[in-house]
Amino acid sequence: MERIRDVGEFGLIARIEGMARRAFARAPRGVVVGIGDDAAVLRVRADEEVVVTTDALVEGVHFDFAHETPRVVGRRALAANLSDLAAMGARPLGFVVAMSAPGATPLAQALGVARGLIDWARRFECPLVGGNLARGGEISIAISAFGAVKRGRALLRKAARSGDLIFVTGTLGGAALARARGRVVRAAEPRLAAGQALARLRGAGACIDLSDGLAGDLGHVCRASQVRARIDVERLPVPRGFAAACKRAGCDPLALALAGGEDYELLFTARGADARAELLTRRLGVAVTEIGLIQAGRPAIDGLPARFAAKGFRHF
Amino acid sequence: MERIRDVGEFGLIARIEGMARRAFARAPRGVVVGIGDDAAVLRVRADEEVVVTTDALVEGVHFDFAHETPRVVGRRALAANLSDLAAMGARPLGFVVAMSAPGATPLAQALGVARGLIDWARRFECPLVGGNLARGGEISIAISAFGAVKRGRALLRKAARSGDLIFVTGTLGGAALARARGRVVRAAEPRLAAGQALARLRGAGACIDLSDGLAGDLGHVCRASQVRARIDVERLPVPRGFAAACKRAGCDPLALALAGGEDYELLFTARGADARAELLTRRLGVAVTEIGLIQAGRPAIDGLPARFAAKGFRHF
Repeated sequence: MERIRDVGEFGLIARIEGMARRAFARAPRGVVVGIGDDAAVLRVRADEEVVVTTDALVEGVHFDFAHETPRVVGRRALAANLSDLAAMGARPLGFVVAMSAPGATPLAQALGVARGLIDWARRFECPLVGGNLARGGEISIAISAFGAVKRGRALLRKAARSGDLIFVTGTLGGAALARARGRVVRAAEPRLAAGQALARLRGAGACIDLSDGLAGDLGHVCRASQVRARIDVERLPVPRGFAAACKRAGCDPLALALAGGEDYELLFTARGADARAELLTRRLGVAVTEIGLIQAGRPAIDGLPARFAAKGFRHF
Repeated sequence: MERIRDVGEFGLIARIEGMARRAFARAPRGVVVGIGDDAAVLRVRADEEVVVTTDALVEGVHFDFAHETPRVVGRRALAANLSDLAAMGARPLGFVVAMSAPGATPLAQALGVARGLIDWARRFECPLVGGNLARGGEISIAISAFGAVKRGRALLRKAARSGDLIFVTGTLGGAALARARGRVVRAAEPRLAAGQALARLRGAGACIDLSDGLAGDLGHVCRASQVRARIDVERLPVPRGFAAACKRAGCDPLALALAGGEDYELLFTARGADARAELLTRRLGVAVTEIGLIQAGRPAIDGLPARFAAKGFRHF
């Protein structure tokens, strides 16, 4: 079996570069200088700002090759970053990856991760523009992704106001159920198009992506906006057959929907004429569900069953 | 002794955020949204492009707390990235850091690294705008830094042309000598002001920062520009007392100057009226030395003593 140390740092870089080049027939718009110099050069429009985020996956903590393929790990690593861009309402410009791995890592594993990154890079039009490979005792994949958003139109956590309705895209709890059943968690599909559509809406308020779970992430919005949220747990959208599958797996469906994490859906608030689930579903191109209301008051979440309130979800 | 797991991920983040906020009395220009949202938002001028780079340090590979303080490690981690921005001629906008560490890591160590990052952030006016903390089996510090450069003015490796003179800033081999003597390698001072001044010069050609050593990095320029370089090893600038110190340490001074690495000086080419060391020294605000000439031909370096040519430095 070929290992990273057999081809060396530069050998591995050359293979990943080749993979990245083949994935994009021509240089994507906005990339002035891509892989291969001291840094990449990206171009945004005169009326745009630059959005930057970073997120990392570490072997044995965030992934385990015994349970998922390198390709899925690569997709997940990029998806987590793209989801942050989506939550800001940004269009992707590109990403860089700093990967470290032991020299004994099978080459196929490293190339599989790169393949997964490039799958999602291509699908979401976010090209790999640079990177760094280092030796390390474990596999770690640290990504920074870049996007562009119209000046002053980035969707922020602090923008929720009393009277806003609270919405989520898609369904909640699916990733947590898959984990609970010992199934492979598929790479989420970051809601990039939905985030960009939301950033264009006059009535948009705060926005965050659901990486840690609804309760925790809504808590971030409440704290940043200094508001109180009331949610209706009966309305939380879950995947088809979710209750029955949870019962078979011995899981509490509400716990998974509230605190499961890794759903990578968008949670946002909206006001005025735009604050209607049907209209938002049409505009964002994904199912949108109204799940609650923002109220004045100290940061807290009302409407949680007592068993969650006791767990510290309610107050921060 | 307090450890990371005693304060937890959010406790450590809060402390680092506080440190970063205190370091910058007011939000630096260009940072529209800093730490605390899904992503940061940066602003560039309408006539600028965005420069992005990434570089990582891994414990036991790139640093060892037995030999250097956490603060120096933090400075070095940011310096490596800032040096890449310098080599593009960019002014810094900000950086993000993805740090992973075992829960048993002494809190003082993690905070020391953060302190070092923020020292250099403040000194080179490149604010921390976001980050990610993860549990891991070893300490890893992956940074992405962002800068801005006037459209079309980024200094590229591929811009060397036959007839250009070759220059370097500062001196070479100092970091390698310190390592050879078992001394602490101090955090380099990235040549940001020099890079920006060079990007404004009409006669500027290619540019690269010296992270791997002169011979290797000049090789990158030759390959990217498809040119041949002739260097005069007698002219390589070294620190004061270098030959004697090398002799005492039993090192080959030329080997350290040519292949030492981590000098983080700029190597660049220039042509026309601007291609004079005295003028460049004045304009760039740092000592500049002419060390050779770019010629037409297949990528190679001429002028190396036989013992280096044999080591593969000459041809790629």
